[in-house]
Amino acid sequence: MNLNVYLQEKKDLVDAALDRYLPPAEKFPRSVHQAMRHILFAGGKRLRPVLALSAGELVGGNTRNILPCACALELIHTYSLIHDDLPAMDNDDYRRGMLTTHKQFGEATAVLAGDALLTEAFRLLSCEEVKEKFPAGVLIEVINEVAFTAGSGGMIGGQVVDIESEGKEIDPPLLEYIHTHKTGALILTSVRMGAKLGGANAMEIGALTRYGESIGLAFQIVDDLLNVEGDREEMGKSPGTDAVQSKATYPHLLGVSESKRRAEDLVASAHKALEPFGSKADVLKEIATFVISRRY
Amino acid sequence: MNLNVYLQEKKDLVDAALDRYLPPAEKFPRSVHQAMRHILFAGGKRLRPVLALSAGELVGGNTRNILPCACALELIHTYSLIHDDLPAMDNDDYRRGMLTTHKQFGEATAVLAGDALLTEAFRLLSCEEVKEKFPAGVLIEVINEVAFTAGSGGMIGGQVVDIESEGKEIDPPLLEYIHTHKTGALILTSVRMGAKLGGANAMEIGALTRYGESIGLAFQIVDDLLNVEGDREEMGKSPGTDAVQSKATYPHLLGVSESKRRAEDLVASAHKALEPFGSKADVLKEIATFVISRRY
Repeated sequence: MNLNVYLQEKKDLVDAALDRYLPPAEKFPRSVHQAMRHILFAGGKRLRPVLALSAGELVGGNTRNILPCACALELIHTYSLIHDDLPAMDNDDYRRGMLTTHKQFGEATAVLAGDALLTEAFRLLSCEEVKEKFPAGVLIEVINEVAFTAGSGGMIGGQVVDIESEGKEIDPPLLEYIHTHKTGALILTSVRMGAKLGGANAMEIGALTRYGESIGLAFQIVDDLLNVEGDREEMGKSPGTDAVQSKATYPHLLGVSESKRRAEDLVASAHKALEPFGSKADVLKEIATFVISRRY
Repeated sequence: MNLNVYLQEKKDLVDAALDRYLPPAEKFPRSVHQAMRHILFAGGKRLRPVLALSAGELVGGNTRNILPCACALELIHTYSLIHDDLPAMDNDDYRRGMLTTHKQFGEATAVLAGDALLTEAFRLLSCEEVKEKFPAGVLIEVINEVAFTAGSGGMIGGQVVDIESEGKEIDPPLLEYIHTHKTGALILTSVRMGAKLGGANAMEIGALTRYGESIGLAFQIVDDLLNVEGDREEMGKSPGTDAVQSKATYPHLLGVSESKRRAEDLVASAHKALEPFGSKADVLKEIATFVISRRY
């Protein structure tokens, strides 16, 4: 199997589903429905949905059935990007090679489009199509985990500490808090969602949880490294912006080569966690390797 | 029964539950947990949770069991106030007699505290305590209705059109769209949530839906009237701010006396919808009357 072909196929599936599930851009009131789609369809990798689908497939789940819930993860990721880019937060003008949502649609619409995407995620997780395919008790568990992950004990907590640490010297445990909460938590939850909806047993959920924790943190360390070294065109945003805002990053705290070693160790842990699955887990293994070799 | 005593008892119940279910103010990261509580505990009427509890009781439901879900409604209402007050939206400095969240904690924290309250609502609706008390299928339905109501087809849609109509002449149908979506939808959903969790049959849900639609719109018309006539001290915010921003309101469009008549008609419809319940529905009847006689 060629990983790029696999990722592209899954991305196409997710993109088509997102377009189908989201309110049409022409629906009244148009401004917010257009703003909800602006960054969403500006070419993300769909890493979180792909992880949910791949973890689900690994334990015998049905990709089509998991698809709406997997899309909810991308909506939450996109809402967090829109709000993080706001002038009061990171004040970014570009994202995925496009103007950020507030630059394109104004600040009020950007706040509301983010709010709407977050809300829409929970609508999708509880929609009729999903309700028909899974036991309601499992769905409630998944909704609860997604809500916890997106909340002040997860992503929002990470973002708060990230903003409050700007320009301050912080220690490695606090940096790990920021990264595991702001980015790692939703990646972990994506893997666990796929496992649960795919019908994984407790042993399988345990193994996939260790996998998700490792790649979640590895992903953010690589993001930090790309921000130092990356190429503007490939990334679609300005590299070096973290340094300008003196944000806490792994390269800043541990140096570039130590950060790379850390990311490689985490990928090795991710691979190890998948051992019980044998060659069935090759896709997830390759995704872990992709996470640290990616250039964007 | 004295309505004021009843409302105060229910408000105390809801306040204690909100304090119990929300992350403590001291929990790391403190700023966002304090900001989440700032306006929430500045003395709201808890109308939405009270409606859910009262509708639930009417059809034989258990108040204690419905309480966490009722609290979720107040979290969504409060998140919408925090985001609506932002400089990019209504740019309000005071709310419930206190500084608005962005004035007290800064804009970034206010955006994130609103996000966190919205997310926390869905965590509460799917928490272990709730899962133990209700069939999972009913909870999924309730979650889906709340998500739809809070989304771009409900509250957010209403807020978008409200902002975009500022300073423009709008017609009565558009004004009704704003009011039914921005305010009415969550009031209706509060009543319906109580009915569904209380185990209402289809006829009861139908009657309570008509009740909820009527008081939802009546509530917003009275809000418009209070904004023209209200007393600053009783309201805790500046009356007349809508006129300053030339917002679309019923008194502006229909005049004060015609708006009052409209609100009274709606309360009469609400009373009529409750007829099948007989005297058991006296509390909900009195709440409808309270909605148009309130001074704050």
